[in-house]
Amino acid sequence: MTGSQDMNFNLGPCPFPSPLKKAQEFFVTDDDQVLLASTLRELGAAGSDAPTFEMAGPREKIFFDPRKTRGGIVTCGGLCPGINDVIRSLVMTLSYAYGVPKILGFRYGYRGLSSAGKGSALELTPEKVKNIHEDGGTLLGSSRGPQDVWEMVDTLVEFGVNLLFAVGGDGTLKGASAIAEEIARRGLEIAVIGIPKTIDNDLEWVTQSFGFNTAVEEARKAITAAHAEAIGALNGIGLVKLMGRHAGSIAAQAVLASGDANFCLVPEVPFRLEGKGGFLQALEERLRHKRHAVIVVAEGAGQDLMEKSGERQRDASGNVRLKDIGDFLQEHIVRFLKERKLEMTLKYIDPSYIIRSLPANAFDSGFCLVLGQQAVHAAMAGKTQIMIGHWNRHFTHVPLEMATKRRRQLDEKTWQRVLEATGQPTSFFTD
Amino acid sequence: MTGSQDMNFNLGPCPFPSPLKKAQEFFVTDDDQVLLASTLRELGAAGSDAPTFEMAGPREKIFFDPRKTRGGIVTCGGLCPGINDVIRSLVMTLSYAYGVPKILGFRYGYRGLSSAGKGSALELTPEKVKNIHEDGGTLLGSSRGPQDVWEMVDTLVEFGVNLLFAVGGDGTLKGASAIAEEIARRGLEIAVIGIPKTIDNDLEWVTQSFGFNTAVEEARKAITAAHAEAIGALNGIGLVKLMGRHAGSIAAQAVLASGDANFCLVPEVPFRLEGKGGFLQALEERLRHKRHAVIVVAEGAGQDLMEKSGERQRDASGNVRLKDIGDFLQEHIVRFLKERKLEMTLKYIDPSYIIRSLPANAFDSGFCLVLGQQAVHAAMAGKTQIMIGHWNRHFTHVPLEMATKRRRQLDEKTWQRVLEATGQPTSFFTD
Amino acid sequence: MTGSQDMNFNLGPCPFPSPLKKAQEFFVTDDDQVLLASTLRELGAAGSDAPTFEMAGPREKIFFDPRKTRGGIVTCGGLCPGINDVIRSLVMTLSYAYGVPKILGFRYGYRGLSSAGKGSALELTPEKVKNIHEDGGTLLGSSRGPQDVWEMVDTLVEFGVNLLFAVGGDGTLKGASAIAEEIARRGLEIAVIGIPKTIDNDLEWVTQSFGFNTAVEEARKAITAAHAEAIGALNGIGLVKLMGRHAGSIAAQAVLASGDANFCLVPEVPFRLEGKGGFLQALEERLRHKRHAVIVVAEGAGQDLMEKSGERQRDASGNVRLKDIGDFLQEHIVRFLKERKLEMTLKYIDPSYIIRSLPANAFDSGFCLVLGQQAVHAAMAGKTQIMIGHWNRHFTHVPLEMATKRRRQLDEKTWQRVLEATGQPTSFFTD
Amino acid sequence: MTGSQDMNFNLGPCPFPSPLKKAQEFFVTDDDQVLLASTLRELGAAGSDAPTFEMAGPREKIFFDPRKTRGGIVTCGGLCPGINDVIRSLVMTLSYAYGVPKILGFRYGYRGLSSAGKGSALELTPEKVKNIHEDGGTLLGSSRGPQDVWEMVDTLVEFGVNLLFAVGGDGTLKGASAIAEEIARRGLEIAVIGIPKTIDNDLEWVTQSFGFNTAVEEARKAITAAHAEAIGALNGIGLVKLMGRHAGSIAAQAVLASGDANFCLVPEVPFRLEGKGGFLQALEERLRHKRHAVIVVAEGAGQDLMEKSGERQRDASGNVRLKDIGDFLQEHIVRFLKERKLEMTLKYIDPSYIIRSLPANAFDSGFCLVLGQQAVHAAMAGKTQIMIGHWNRHFTHVPLEMATKRRRQLDEKTWQRVLEATGQPTSFFTD
Repeated sequence: MTGSQDMNFNLGPCPFPSPLKKAQEFFVTDDDQVLLASTLRELGAAGSDAPTFEMAGPREKIFFDPRKTRGGIVTCGGLCPGINDVIRSLVMTLSYAYGVPKILGFRYGYRGLSSAGKGSALELTPEKVKNIHEDGGTLLGSSRGPQDVWEMVDTLVEFGVNLLFAVGGDGTLKGASAIAEEIARRGLEIAVIGIPKTIDNDLEWVTQSFGFNTAVEEARKAITAAHAEAIGALNGIGLVKLMGRHAGSIAAQAVLASGDANFCLVPEVPFRLEGKGGFLQALEERLRHKRHAVIVVAEGAGQDLMEKSGERQRDASGNVRLKDIGDFLQEHIVRFLKERKLEMTLKYIDPSYIIRSLPANAFDSGFCLVLGQQAVHAAMAGKTQIMIGHWNRHFTHVPLEMATKRRRQLDEKTWQRVLEATGQPTSFFTD
Repeated sequence: MTGSQDMNFNLGPCPFPSPLKKAQEFFVTDDDQVLLASTLRELGAAGSDAPTFEMAGPREKIFFDPRKTRGGIVTCGGLCPGINDVIRSLVMTLSYAYGVPKILGFRYGYRGLSSAGKGSALELTPEKVKNIHEDGGTLLGSSRGPQDVWEMVDTLVEFGVNLLFAVGGDGTLKGASAIAEEIARRGLEIAVIGIPKTIDNDLEWVTQSFGFNTAVEEARKAITAAHAEAIGALNGIGLVKLMGRHAGSIAAQAVLASGDANFCLVPEVPFRLEGKGGFLQALEERLRHKRHAVIVVAEGAGQDLMEKSGERQRDASGNVRLKDIGDFLQEHIVRFLKERKLEMTLKYIDPSYIIRSLPANAFDSGFCLVLGQQAVHAAMAGKTQIMIGHWNRHFTHVPLEMATKRRRQLDEKTWQRVLEATGQPTSFFTD
Repeated sequence: MTGSQDMNFNLGPCPFPSPLKKAQEFFVTDDDQVLLASTLRELGAAGSDAPTFEMAGPREKIFFDPRKTRGGIVTCGGLCPGINDVIRSLVMTLSYAYGVPKILGFRYGYRGLSSAGKGSALELTPEKVKNIHEDGGTLLGSSRGPQDVWEMVDTLVEFGVNLLFAVGGDGTLKGASAIAEEIARRGLEIAVIGIPKTIDNDLEWVTQSFGFNTAVEEARKAITAAHAEAIGALNGIGLVKLMGRHAGSIAAQAVLASGDANFCLVPEVPFRLEGKGGFLQALEERLRHKRHAVIVVAEGAGQDLMEKSGERQRDASGNVRLKDIGDFLQEHIVRFLKERKLEMTLKYIDPSYIIRSLPANAFDSGFCLVLGQQAVHAAMAGKTQIMIGHWNRHFTHVPLEMATKRRRQLDEKTWQRVLEATGQPTSFFTD
Repeated sequence: MTGSQDMNFNLGPCPFPSPLKKAQEFFVTDDDQVLLASTLRELGAAGSDAPTFEMAGPREKIFFDPRKTRGGIVTCGGLCPGINDVIRSLVMTLSYAYGVPKILGFRYGYRGLSSAGKGSALELTPEKVKNIHEDGGTLLGSSRGPQDVWEMVDTLVEFGVNLLFAVGGDGTLKGASAIAEEIARRGLEIAVIGIPKTIDNDLEWVTQSFGFNTAVEEARKAITAAHAEAIGALNGIGLVKLMGRHAGSIAAQAVLASGDANFCLVPEVPFRLEGKGGFLQALEERLRHKRHAVIVVAEGAGQDLMEKSGERQRDASGNVRLKDIGDFLQEHIVRFLKERKLEMTLKYIDPSYIIRSLPANAFDSGFCLVLGQQAVHAAMAGKTQIMIGHWNRHFTHVPLEMATKRRRQLDEKTWQRVLEATGQPTSFFTD
């Protein structure tokens, strides 16, 4: 493996300043170099101290005797395309590849491991899960919020579960970690494997989480719809709210995939509404020139603007309940343009539940299949307190502690591409 | 950035042998470690000798004076979802981000740069390309096969083109390289940038080429159709041929995305038809047990089996023209099962042209947009004789020489997952 | 043409009462007979007094000299899949079939014919409209509400328009009628042809209006999504609001097309929420037995229940502005089940704008093409003050007066099929 | 109900001849009148002798005692979108609406009623069929060709079947008729109801057969693909073969739905290839002017042209096996244009199996649901030897004898619209 360092593919020195106005902080230099290697083995001797993850995959020797092993699956949090694919893959791999004789599905999230919920556990067989990936949602049902850890471990012991697979996001993975710690405290031999589910794609060390690709496909359709509505009325405005509580990935990626968005607002980049160069003024200017506008906003954007009203709440999982930025923008836009005597029509589209409940597209289905395979390989090899990640083109074992330490946000380069693609002014971004 | 090396997430030593029969050569050990880093900067001092690529992206200083620059675009080879997205992105970025005043589209591949074809060149403007990404195919038209390099460089000079963007596969990139060499020989200041197009996903240093994702989505539908046909008849066989002359990536990925394929044949893994444990016998066994079978075959599979008939030809691009493995398999299956007195029905589906001519899905559209942006950034900075790659989560500059040295094939891990997912016997693979 | 009257295909007399509980008023007898004939010609002498419509189609002699004729097109009201197909068909047929040299598109509904709006009229050519059917919405833009009739006729005269095509619903057709009357009053030779657009399918003498088929396809997806959400939570409720101010056709047809809806509420059949056998109690019973429920409600349903709050408004077109039955149901359901101590999750999906802005599916595209052809044939033959209808398998000329006399509602048979398909109790219907 | 006869909506007498060149035989006059009425009841006294069908629907008194009744279902012939919807509707209606306790599904067409096949009969329950409409194909499997009638009636007696539902086309309905005759001969009380299945839409007295709508949707996609391929090459030709052995309905309707087809060839209108004004010359002319062409051909078109080669065969059902008109056209086009020294590329797309195996779209799903309901109502009321038709907006009972007397073909008006929409010359049509 040899790279391109010694080759020259420059026509010559560069005398002209770039006209890219919005890219100041984003410029790349020739010293920015991307590794060919993605593994320690490929890197060779040089990089022996480089930080790494264990690679996921089947091990030659395993910890559990398959015939005496019992699997358990739980799915938590909001719906996301692909959950059924993951369940199916776990069941198929446990049954066919390893010959595990019994697999239990606990219903409605961690509630299914509580003393109140454990009674409804389902036995999962290949026959039962054969076609579930054709449907969105989750066969097992889901719920938000934590349950008593002590009770949940009692349930695992009571049902004889040796392998627990927890499909969920940040909160779920923290829950899985707490379960694994209690298991360790009791000295039990139960592997706990997390499978990262975040439609927002906001988990660290997961290049692209399952369901995200499907979500972007459908989100693009909502933008296309908003564009048709905007074009279809005098000074028409199409406003689309997309998922993304803390990260604008779906919004950004859908904007890049569409050619129709004129503004994109995300949680990572605060903006101001009012005043000269503010968002409302920029919107008015666009309408006066182009007679229509399409705005894409991530649900977590502009929270600071709404804070004064002081109505923050927490949902059952303890997440801060966000105010609806779509309603908020709609109100302010309508009021502002009315004051400015601009006749207009605004159509607000919120496709969230339609997106969340879709079956996985082909990319996500294939990805979920492999996630499930890797989770089973890890569990059978006695790995615990990890989640299956995907990084630099490899599936990995990511310690739950590392995975939940911080959220992943939109990277600067993607944001710069969004600025280029929308052509939106940067005057109203306050960062 | 710290990795997980010092953490322990093993329940204990592993006493049991894995029951995975087909995975002997695929087992992973705990010494297989995936780098957290993907750039030299992230890797730090340790890896200063690691092979790398230059990172793509906008440069602060550029080589060409935008107002005096003229772009040229050419699209070559077979259709692939996303070509129009790339054209659109090139035109939008050149026009809006850099202010390049004139862009020419040469028609029908390199033919458009020949003296015979140059007369049909189109001027491309943002208005003209605004909606082309809604349509599959290529606005410019395409063709296969090389043209006289001397003539093509003459055309670039005649039309005053400073930046040439060539969208195409292996042959196209070799052609671009030859053009760049002739340009260097003449001492001209013309940047030549390749944009890799291969629906088969068989180019090195491109994690996933544009159009591939869209192709897998549609290929899965063909497998679903074949499954319905197979189920719908007594001993029904659904046979799907998918693209992949030298690499079985589409076939493998579509099989992973679908739950319906029972056999998958790819160019990388030779197989035998006849005899004990041969493919035909394995198929018969499945039919006798399950009453239906779905076979997915990549177009380049089994070429050695057909070789005796000695009819290899070359197409206009000089590629070996493969015999149709679908027809070949159909004949042999029907004959064999007739001999074995098994009443059956076979339906053969070849969705190639429907797939190739699709518009890009959201993933590919977004990816094409960025490819186009990066190609323009590179060209404006005076880079030449490179293509835009994507590796370890970064867009890169890949020397054309490196890019075309060898083809990329299905990696072993994906193949192992295909074996797991289909449950197909390995007795007929001869490798 | 001979029917089946004299044939016997009964096994014998029927001794048993039908167990269909909900069908009392829907039973059919052997005396209910469907005509083979759909035209007067087919019916023959017998039916010479039967009421009829003129059949649409090209006439051998026409009223206008094509070379001296000028067309005008206006699109009004809410978006609906297929408007662009109609525009395209009008332009293509006028240009290519008749050779009409100039066609004007007036922008943003009747506003485009007002003195304020007339300045923005576009010239429409085959080149310009060639691909517009790939996009939803309307190239011309739309608006609601009437304009001054005197002014609009002045505009037609000023621009030399001889043929006015007005695409829209009830209000638009009344407007077209008023324009035609003013034209007659002035003794002008301008043909006014209405093209019925109602996504709700609530116009008399139009078997299935354009866009309806596309709408039902997408509405079914929303029900599928609601079902996944309902299944995905303990006592999950999926609530889908669909278009239909005065007619529940979309809701009913989408429920028949889906297998997932458990309740269907439409404007035509009043219902009560509270009390024994009321909707809320029926919902609670279902949840206690089945743990999930999917409710489909047409936007015009239950208006009487909301009337007490006294907030009826009128929109720009003078239509009564309905309160949101989705919000209303959501509130009442959540409150009721909370009182009944039933833990539950409700997801409310309103796909209206996404549906309205879709491009037409194949059925609707083909239908719109023919509507446009027939409208041009009628106009060229000097027909006026009619709309193009479709009845008993034929395209017809329907006098605008007949078309707008009353609205079409869900027929009883469809409603009975909905009752059968959902299995919903009838205890809460008050009709 | 009053029609529009006495209203005048003509601007005046028509002095100009129509410029529509291709419409001579298609002109409509004002004497062509469409009935408002579709039933005898609506028509009133006047039309008491008009030929009619019995209206389908639930009867107040029924022939069979539901608790002692046993249903049987058989699906025959090629796949068609919606078969599973019909099976599901039959089972749901028999079980839930009537309380029929047992329903048998016979496998692989009439083969399942033969002594060889009867052993594989499945019991069908609501639980088993709940989700089958999500999949294309038929749960029961299908086959072509007749079986011994005597044996089949024996099987019905042996299994105690009182109601036989046969889903299939022309041959299947003839088979059902023969079964019903044998039943009558033996004096048995078994109702035989046909459910018309023809993806080609070529059965009389069925306005639009199930699956046709779905087929046209997908067929349009194939034409779009062919268009992209045609545009993408110098003198590119996209050739699409669509289903339609004796009727060009799918081809015609897909051409109307698409804007991209330049030629449409159907079985009903013979054409000549060679000579002045022949198809090949017309194609060459188009290529020389427009540089691309899209041809849509129904599989039954041009059979006379291929007859000389004398290779007509019959398939298992006794249908004449047609030669592949796609291959035939491809050969002749390539040879002809080569002789004419026109460089070209032809891409041939045959989407048949992909179309046939699709799940039903929303329109077809809803239609299949009602077909199934009506078939059960008819059978329970002791009707026999009929099929469920749909005519003039009503579901009907059509005697099997009437249904299979002749095939339905493309009507002249649709053909005229196809001529208008494609703009193809009529010089090569020999009719």
